[in-house]
Amino acid sequence: MIAGIVGATGYGGIELFRLLSKHPQINQLKLYSSSQAGVEFEAIYPQFESRERHPLHEVDPVKMKEECDVVFLATPAGVSSRLTPELQDGKAKIIDLSGDLRLKNSADYSAWYKKDPAPEPSLEKAVYGLPEWNKEAIRSADVVSNPGCYPTATLLGLGPVMSEQLADPGSIIVDAKSGVSGAGKNPNALTHFAHAQENFQIYKVNQHQHIPEVEQQLMQWNEETTPITFSTHLVPMTRGIMATIYFTLKEEKSAEELLALYKDVYADQPFVRVKSEGQFPCTKDVYQTNFCDIGLTVDSRTKRVTVVSVIDNLMKGAASQAVQNMNLVFHLDEAAGLPQFPVYP
Amino acid sequence: MIAGIVGATGYGGIELFRLLSKHPQINQLKLYSSSQAGVEFEAIYPQFESRERHPLHEVDPVKMKEECDVVFLATPAGVSSRLTPELQDGKAKIIDLSGDLRLKNSADYSAWYKKDPAPEPSLEKAVYGLPEWNKEAIRSADVVSNPGCYPTATLLGLGPVMSEQLADPGSIIVDAKSGVSGAGKNPNALTHFAHAQENFQIYKVNQHQHIPEVEQQLMQWNEETTPITFSTHLVPMTRGIMATIYFTLKEEKSAEELLALYKDVYADQPFVRVKSEGQFPCTKDVYQTNFCDIGLTVDSRTKRVTVVSVIDNLMKGAASQAVQNMNLVFHLDEAAGLPQFPVYP
Amino acid sequence: MIAGIVGATGYGGIELFRLLSKHPQINQLKLYSSSQAGVEFEAIYPQFESRERHPLHEVDPVKMKEECDVVFLATPAGVSSRLTPELQDGKAKIIDLSGDLRLKNSADYSAWYKKDPAPEPSLEKAVYGLPEWNKEAIRSADVVSNPGCYPTATLLGLGPVMSEQLADPGSIIVDAKSGVSGAGKNPNALTHFAHAQENFQIYKVNQHQHIPEVEQQLMQWNEETTPITFSTHLVPMTRGIMATIYFTLKEEKSAEELLALYKDVYADQPFVRVKSEGQFPCTKDVYQTNFCDIGLTVDSRTKRVTVVSVIDNLMKGAASQAVQNMNLVFHLDEAAGLPQFPVYP
Amino acid sequence: MIAGIVGATGYGGIELFRLLSKHPQINQLKLYSSSQAGVEFEAIYPQFESRERHPLHEVDPVKMKEECDVVFLATPAGVSSRLTPELQDGKAKIIDLSGDLRLKNSADYSAWYKKDPAPEPSLEKAVYGLPEWNKEAIRSADVVSNPGCYPTATLLGLGPVMSEQLADPGSIIVDAKSGVSGAGKNPNALTHFAHAQENFQIYKVNQHQHIPEVEQQLMQWNEETTPITFSTHLVPMTRGIMATIYFTLKEEKSAEELLALYKDVYADQPFVRVKSEGQFPCTKDVYQTNFCDIGLTVDSRTKRVTVVSVIDNLMKGAASQAVQNMNLVFHLDEAAGLPQFPVYP
Repeated sequence: MIAGIVGATGYGGIELFRLLSKHPQINQLKLYSSSQAGVEFEAIYPQFESRERHPLHEVDPVKMKEECDVVFLATPAGVSSRLTPELQDGKAKIIDLSGDLRLKNSADYSAWYKKDPAPEPSLEKAVYGLPEWNKEAIRSADVVSNPGCYPTATLLGLGPVMSEQLADPGSIIVDAKSGVSGAGKNPNALTHFAHAQENFQIYKVNQHQHIPEVEQQLMQWNEETTPITFSTHLVPMTRGIMATIYFTLKEEKSAEELLALYKDVYADQPFVRVKSEGQFPCTKDVYQTNFCDIGLTVDSRTKRVTVVSVIDNLMKGAASQAVQNMNLVFHLDEAAGLPQFPVYP
Repeated sequence: MIAGIVGATGYGGIELFRLLSKHPQINQLKLYSSSQAGVEFEAIYPQFESRERHPLHEVDPVKMKEECDVVFLATPAGVSSRLTPELQDGKAKIIDLSGDLRLKNSADYSAWYKKDPAPEPSLEKAVYGLPEWNKEAIRSADVVSNPGCYPTATLLGLGPVMSEQLADPGSIIVDAKSGVSGAGKNPNALTHFAHAQENFQIYKVNQHQHIPEVEQQLMQWNEETTPITFSTHLVPMTRGIMATIYFTLKEEKSAEELLALYKDVYADQPFVRVKSEGQFPCTKDVYQTNFCDIGLTVDSRTKRVTVVSVIDNLMKGAASQAVQNMNLVFHLDEAAGLPQFPVYP
Repeated sequence: MIAGIVGATGYGGIELFRLLSKHPQINQLKLYSSSQAGVEFEAIYPQFESRERHPLHEVDPVKMKEECDVVFLATPAGVSSRLTPELQDGKAKIIDLSGDLRLKNSADYSAWYKKDPAPEPSLEKAVYGLPEWNKEAIRSADVVSNPGCYPTATLLGLGPVMSEQLADPGSIIVDAKSGVSGAGKNPNALTHFAHAQENFQIYKVNQHQHIPEVEQQLMQWNEETTPITFSTHLVPMTRGIMATIYFTLKEEKSAEELLALYKDVYADQPFVRVKSEGQFPCTKDVYQTNFCDIGLTVDSRTKRVTVVSVIDNLMKGAASQAVQNMNLVFHLDEAAGLPQFPVYP
Repeated sequence: MIAGIVGATGYGGIELFRLLSKHPQINQLKLYSSSQAGVEFEAIYPQFESRERHPLHEVDPVKMKEECDVVFLATPAGVSSRLTPELQDGKAKIIDLSGDLRLKNSADYSAWYKKDPAPEPSLEKAVYGLPEWNKEAIRSADVVSNPGCYPTATLLGLGPVMSEQLADPGSIIVDAKSGVSGAGKNPNALTHFAHAQENFQIYKVNQHQHIPEVEQQLMQWNEETTPITFSTHLVPMTRGIMATIYFTLKEEKSAEELLALYKDVYADQPFVRVKSEGQFPCTKDVYQTNFCDIGLTVDSRTKRVTVVSVIDNLMKGAASQAVQNMNLVFHLDEAAGLPQFPVYP
């Protein structure tokens, strides 16, 4: 199989390069870049030097859709909305890591992303690639829209209670924290080491473009979903997301009962691990993996539930989930090419 | 004035040593330690070497209460509950940085701290040292119970809306994050650099001993206060606390109106800074200061309020607030000896 | 093949567990621990939870030497000197990650390690496992003594000039820097996050036990080797070693000539990458890999050479080099089971 | 006294602002900026908000030299070479934190800084502001050239042995490490948090513009000084420099003898602390202070000396040393306005 990566020099693209390079079913990797075509990937990232060199090719959809079996779009917002229409009628399956194809309602896209939405036919073709909740649709998809990092952590944490109609949707508050790589590789004042280190920052309060993506899926589970409260913070670490999620139950349940539900719902999902009662995950537990680890408790005093969900934002929150989706699209082993254990310490 | 510090070798004690050493009204500093009496402070912390050396004296309440004008207790839980009764009838004013004298209801103390409570007379004498809300009582106190780090950030963030009966107490959720120094100086697996760095951890979910302290003060503002939800996280940085606080209003208010209220309430408080609309503080803004910086917004979609409150956990959350309290007790300039600006970067 | 790990719960052992779990030739992994026998590895490190659980077995050399094909000893100094004699006459090949079998002169071991040395027959059997310089001997070894982390970086940086008699041995100064994981997993004051973060520390100046190991190999290359100067520092990061190496040449050479020599010497070594002129590696270039990256320059003003050599201390400096050695011992592909690319960012 | 700061928004300028704001002899602080004139300092750095606001004024040398008693130039290379000639004939004393006035030989400046040198009369007027070695000249200076960060740490570490002709100048190797703030506040790929964290980098090997500054002073102590070897590294921390310095002695001396010499030489210097035998400083020991802490040892095997010298690069390496120089120029207490103790932890 030949895989193409558009935007290989961004953080998501680098991870894809690394994962696909050792994927057992990928024989050839082709990299594309509009801004750096002609340069070799290894010239930009000498740490990836090996016997083989990877030139960055022009982004030419007409060629790409025939020379690749699968094309990953690891591009900034506003790019795949234009590329997908030109790519989607060829041989290549498309896996888009950007937010361009996630929101079915294009008015939502315009409002939250402040950009022109993708054309309707592309939005219709795109299947939301959250494997744990949409596996069958992904298996027959031509275009997969890979979820955002915050939505992945949040939705896996909320899926069991929302789909079982146990949580009161109006009560949901998500307090999410991300490593600095989530801000992308362009250097700026907020990501300067001397500013970000020994610092904890909040940003885009109630305004993060991942909010409508979360709500869209919550709505799938419960039509009575109303807007949620969603905060995003920057942690002085490179990778990792923790979503601390608060909500009230419609009827009383113990932590034990809820954990049993979560374990049951995710029993066949190789990349979700539910903790035992009293145990909570930390971000390092899933560092460099495709896992989402989940713990929860019910406060005996307030009856409120606290769910803690952690992922590696560049892996399950981006590149490794994209590979998981590719595995599903091509009916491979869902875990092919994905690390089994975290790097520790 | 002569100041004594019991427990000078802990993180809070070190900060007190540093602040009091340059305080314009302190002429002499006496250090006490039960475990390390006889050793010099500078032998343990050579980075504090100067022309003067500070021996650690035996903890002898009978002597201390006469030789000092003020005694700071920077001791672990369970120590000042025993020391205060022996100290409180002397010349020395007492400022206790531990949790032993904070909870008026001694059953709460036993339940949350799993230790024997202080005797009632000590609890009655102790004035809760949150200067922005209790200044007059502090000015005439003999014993001040210095607030916990999380309660300081949380209560300053909630005070204006709670005291004005604007917030629905049952809706309050506090998602709090602290630097690793909050876990104290005893080394363990969770604070090992190789574990804590590049990691974000949650701990003591709904079980932190600072919860009843927060609720006790909320109750002062609003008798209808019910239990709150309160989470604590460990950030890979040494200092700093951010409390992200969520609640609903009893009646609709705009962010502009709320900010006007906060600015008004704290207008005469030298150590609270309220941000402008759309601005939020980060922990580095208050690094190494006695400031509490507060920002807030009202989500137009959910009507929920998000208040962000940051402090330096070892300063406003411990030592510098204790010095602020000393300044009040002795009717000095409230800001005497306290830094005016953060260290940046 | 069945692989055993003694000391699987230390940092080196954890890495071995992770690497061997996905090694294509290892069918079964058996873990041994003297202090925690009976407990499951996953109970101690829940982040490694998977469908399979790994009990920690008693350390029983008689059983181990027959049930395993290879036994890795990831134990503190003083353990494998006792275990190896009991293990070395069985079926199992032995790969020792500790320092116990590295020094051929047992008086050196006593002097630098302050412990009893291994018996002579074990020392004689042990082959020094620096593959790039000892590959043939390793391929026929029964016992491999895996090099220390600092020696690996240093010796790969010095090998070409020392073996070619170009460097003046008496001029060698090694200024080495390591991430905090190099200090091991036992928590102490120096590795407490609040002490180690935002701090740069020097330790064991001229006294590190890796010094005689480096000198022993230098002596192999040049019998006129005299003692070297060697400093070790602790960097506020978890992994990575940089050795900055200074020496004078016996006769003048340009950087270009030296780089050509290095590229030539390491041309067939899959895990050494030599940089181009003017380029230097950083530790992140080899993060999570078995690579050693080397850059160098010749100062036109002083004629002194500066060689920069970086490795991941837990990988090429411990576990992945041990796996490389296992691959050689069993005549497998030298790179089997080892990552091809670093994790970045 | 009225103090002016040109370039107040850079890292050095921010520190000057903080230090001078609380300096007992400074009544007024005036900030100047060519790029941001008209903006208020507090608008750029809201963390410095206080009752007083500080507008950034136009850089007008004619006005500045009369309205200020002292002007600090915290500007990039190439600015004060142009400003100083216009400023130096007025009332104001000048303290230049840039490298423009440090090298007496203007050809050296051109060669290492790749910029036009300052005019000779300015270079002649400028006194090198290393107080521990040039105090009398500073006390009568009109223009002080504040030393670079690396030279400060290096020269204080070498002064006693060089001025006593004990060290062999040709043997000197300086392996220096700096926190990331040393790279300045302009964001770029090397200082991006996700790149710099968990990374240790080397840069400008043998090419750092501080090398000729060090050599110029060494030459003052010993005319036979020849070029030194000097490496600079970037540590994943914000502040702090450690210079590990290696050299050989002309005649044998013990560590005890050398330490006695260092203690003697620096006996009257309030900001140099010499460690006891066997003790070495770490950068956190001097964090946020004007101290330079020095430890040393003599290797009994190689007879080589290792000196370890640490400073805070933004304090003793820049802003607080500039204030120390101001104190000397105006015959104030040398320690006025400078912190006595480090911030710890």
